[in-house]
Amino acid sequence: MSNERLIYLALGGAGEIGMNAYVYGWGAPDKERLIVVDLGVTFPEMEGSPGVDLIFADVEWLEARRDRIEGIFITHAHEDHVGAVGHLWHRLRAPIYARRFTAHHAARKLSEHGGDEKAINVVEPWPDTRKYGPFSVGFAPISHSIPESSSLVIDTPAGRIVHTGDFKLDRTPLVGEPWDPDLWAGIAAGGVKALVCDSTNVFSPHAGRSEATVGPEITELVSDAKGMVIATTFASNVARVKTLAEAGVAAGRSVCLLGRAMRRMVEASVETGVLTDFPTVVSPEEAGDIPRENLMLLVTGSQGERRAASAGLSRGKYLGLEVKEGDLFLFSSKTIPGNERGVARIINAFSEKGVDVVDENSGGHYHVSGHANRPDLDTMHALVKPQMVIPMHGEHRHLREHAKLAESNGLQSIVAPNGAVVDMTGNRPKIAEYIEAGRTYLDGAVQIGALDGVVRDRIRMALNGHVLVTLILEDNDALGDPWVEISGLPETGRSKAALVDVLEEDLGQFVGRAKRKTLSDDEALEKELRQIVRKTALDEIGKRPEVTVVISRLSA
Amino acid sequence: MSNERLIYLALGGAGEIGMNAYVYGWGAPDKERLIVVDLGVTFPEMEGSPGVDLIFADVEWLEARRDRIEGIFITHAHEDHVGAVGHLWHRLRAPIYARRFTAHHAARKLSEHGGDEKAINVVEPWPDTRKYGPFSVGFAPISHSIPESSSLVIDTPAGRIVHTGDFKLDRTPLVGEPWDPDLWAGIAAGGVKALVCDSTNVFSPHAGRSEATVGPEITELVSDAKGMVIATTFASNVARVKTLAEAGVAAGRSVCLLGRAMRRMVEASVETGVLTDFPTVVSPEEAGDIPRENLMLLVTGSQGERRAASAGLSRGKYLGLEVKEGDLFLFSSKTIPGNERGVARIINAFSEKGVDVVDENSGGHYHVSGHANRPDLDTMHALVKPQMVIPMHGEHRHLREHAKLAESNGLQSIVAPNGAVVDMTGNRPKIAEYIEAGRTYLDGAVQIGALDGVVRDRIRMALNGHVLVTLILEDNDALGDPWVEISGLPETGRSKAALVDVLEEDLGQFVGRAKRKTLSDDEALEKELRQIVRKTALDEIGKRPEVTVVISRLSA
Repeated sequence: MSNERLIYLALGGAGEIGMNAYVYGWGAPDKERLIVVDLGVTFPEMEGSPGVDLIFADVEWLEARRDRIEGIFITHAHEDHVGAVGHLWHRLRAPIYARRFTAHHAARKLSEHGGDEKAINVVEPWPDTRKYGPFSVGFAPISHSIPESSSLVIDTPAGRIVHTGDFKLDRTPLVGEPWDPDLWAGIAAGGVKALVCDSTNVFSPHAGRSEATVGPEITELVSDAKGMVIATTFASNVARVKTLAEAGVAAGRSVCLLGRAMRRMVEASVETGVLTDFPTVVSPEEAGDIPRENLMLLVTGSQGERRAASAGLSRGKYLGLEVKEGDLFLFSSKTIPGNERGVARIINAFSEKGVDVVDENSGGHYHVSGHANRPDLDTMHALVKPQMVIPMHGEHRHLREHAKLAESNGLQSIVAPNGAVVDMTGNRPKIAEYIEAGRTYLDGAVQIGALDGVVRDRIRMALNGHVLVTLILEDNDALGDPWVEISGLPETGRSKAALVDVLEEDLGQFVGRAKRKTLSDDEALEKELRQIVRKTALDEIGKRPEVTVVISRLSA
Repeated sequence: MSNERLIYLALGGAGEIGMNAYVYGWGAPDKERLIVVDLGVTFPEMEGSPGVDLIFADVEWLEARRDRIEGIFITHAHEDHVGAVGHLWHRLRAPIYARRFTAHHAARKLSEHGGDEKAINVVEPWPDTRKYGPFSVGFAPISHSIPESSSLVIDTPAGRIVHTGDFKLDRTPLVGEPWDPDLWAGIAAGGVKALVCDSTNVFSPHAGRSEATVGPEITELVSDAKGMVIATTFASNVARVKTLAEAGVAAGRSVCLLGRAMRRMVEASVETGVLTDFPTVVSPEEAGDIPRENLMLLVTGSQGERRAASAGLSRGKYLGLEVKEGDLFLFSSKTIPGNERGVARIINAFSEKGVDVVDENSGGHYHVSGHANRPDLDTMHALVKPQMVIPMHGEHRHLREHAKLAESNGLQSIVAPNGAVVDMTGNRPKIAEYIEAGRTYLDGAVQIGALDGVVRDRIRMALNGHVLVTLILEDNDALGDPWVEISGLPETGRSKAALVDVLEEDLGQFVGRAKRKTLSDDEALEKELRQIVRKTALDEIGKRPEVTVVISRLSA
């Protein structure tokens, strides 16, 4: 069929850092066979999504086409790539493919949410490839900040696609496969149609540094420390966790892992064979008996998360362990934009306890990024020599900058945000159509649409407070006065009388004077009562609260 | 009297960057005559203070002692130093002292809130000094990022205090008085008891750069631009606004000020004589007729504020002006920690419109800080040679680091967070007592305590949603079924039935089966109904909402 086409579609990840979810398709328009790459989450915040537990891409488009999905391919085990698997699989029910370490995490997520673990298939890395409908897919090892990260080499009837996943060019990653330019030259040798490429660090001007570069400075810092040493990093950065643990051992310290994710990641890494020589660790109970100068804690919570071990320690005793004046706390991490306040809260709490905190602003090099910086992207462009570069994984500014970079490297490019269906069949990428791409909120146990209004109502209550009015009518006569309750509003305002009393007085006067016609019409009555509340509240306290009116009608 | 003492007390600013409010006292304990330095604000955020308009120090302690206040001294016109004057003056009713430009702003704030402008007294700068009870106070010019910033030289019976206010060591500040080490050597010559010193930049390792250093790069950037140029900075940084305007003029562009604060600051600066040669500006209407390559907009909103001109332009037309592909937007500013998300929102919105954004991460030098960096603090310590350094204006970590720095410079120091009353009478500073120091929220028109529970209730509604239950009883018999309304909660949960129906069903069953004794006891009944709602909601939607129960009793 001459009208078959090759499409790319981001449902998440092309408009934010996080929430990755990409689709490729081959076939006649609206009959394409599809593969899905990654199903990740992003995290809520009080400003835009209060009370929400997790955020992921809206997969309604995919769900409606699930009979056309050949498989779901997970590049690596970071939450923003695998985190939604448990929540979304039952809506898609396609087989999942991943390498061993990633599959281990995907399987746990699936089983935690009642999914069928048999849906998970462990694949071998490149040069192994397998057919999935019109596609052939191979998992090409690439360095990142978690073991067994892979790029996908996707062969299609229209040519080869390289989907980088998250990556950096690290020849000495300590754990997992090093960056291997020869491997990539081989992959590129037959020609690559499209490089779909990580964009997160496009604004970082200098070539990225290797994971191996942080070891010496960390080791020196730990060996100079006098009291207890506590260090935090992303638990999934198994290489870093190992570096930290080894620095502790080298300084004659026992190592203790605190926080569920930290223990889980190390266990999973040992179980799946990616980590072979991790130092012996002691339990928190054992740690309690060890002199603090001989102890090193590796803890969760590098982003200031309130429930993590770092926050627990900053507040007081945590699993029987407690920081003291003269201890050292190391953030072997970067604060993700948006998390600054949470991290500062912890640093200040440690400061109050006399703990010295070392972080990214302390002048040392205790962290490296897991993503390709601008010159590394140049290297990748030059090595893969694709017909076109499709920037992915980034906010709009990152995608746009990456597209400009590709063009400056003589490559075609296009900015394709979430929802843009890119037709890659011809020589130039073009946007064929836009589909509705949105966000799904996991709210408690329920998946709700970001635009459903539920969270909007919460934000309104948080900003404006809430007034409840109840009124009982019998045959269109008020039985007693309107009753008012307030939540999240000051008890008194300008008149110094209780706000509820002032509101009840004004509402009562209205009801006393109201015509039968008004009292007989629920809608009109509710509107009047609401307006009185808002006007009186504005006079009294300078705010227009949210108002709920409940009218109960009894018949005599 | 032998027991007279000299005290220092931070009510705000020593535990946060912002909300400055300091007190000095001399006299017998609890009979001290007092002076207040600065009455500033800090800004609310959705996470901790949703719906709040402004935050300032709780001045209850001061209010209870207002007959002992000799005066309120404002060091400079930044909001975190003068912003609460209008809101708090009627509670303190002491005379306010400030230099001309600062007084101009204080007067406006006072009159906006019904205060008496006659309370404001314009003072001349050092070497002019005046007596205020047991104190003598002089306003010593010092460089910062707003005109006429001053340190206070406070002479007391126990010796001289230098209260730096916010400062940097800038010999070429472009607007206002340059840093003058000779002046400071003179102030220090007779000996200084205490240097109470700005701590915000104690973690910045390199000596600060002068305001004059940003001009050349800004000028080059603007002259290279092809489309319209829009630049933002803090409006109060009058020197920067002038530099930006002059860069526009040099590139043959007409300059237009957008945003109330931007126009107001330039006007105030011209009126008070601190700014003498600001380029002619055009109105937004006139700007609409000027070719975009000949136009430069100076706009408010460097911190991503949703209502500022920068945000307005990022969304679409603003006062008839609109950005287009190829325009340049310059952040001549630093993003204050916590504001990253708001700034990123604007940058991405501009990216979608094809506007090139240049900011602190773009590699150029388009901004310098207004505060003294670590080596500058060393310089100040060495020049003033005080008996003791009291770090102020900073989070706990900044105060602690500054105290360590002072000690490493051979000076006594102490960490004195908000509420710590420091006795400086003797040779060493010591904390005499702690008073309750808190935060006051301006919420609409009402001042509420941060711990009053009002905002806590709002946060709970935002996180958990809200369920309202009404039940009408007549002589302890239910009249009809309980009625439920929900706000901020999903409409359906696990059972796929409407959440309100499931709740009403469960509540109705309980009421139908309830004993008369339960139905006759409002408190017990309310508790039961609340528990049923929370349990059923947890089963259905996985959340425990906030619940309001209204029981109405009719008598037959």
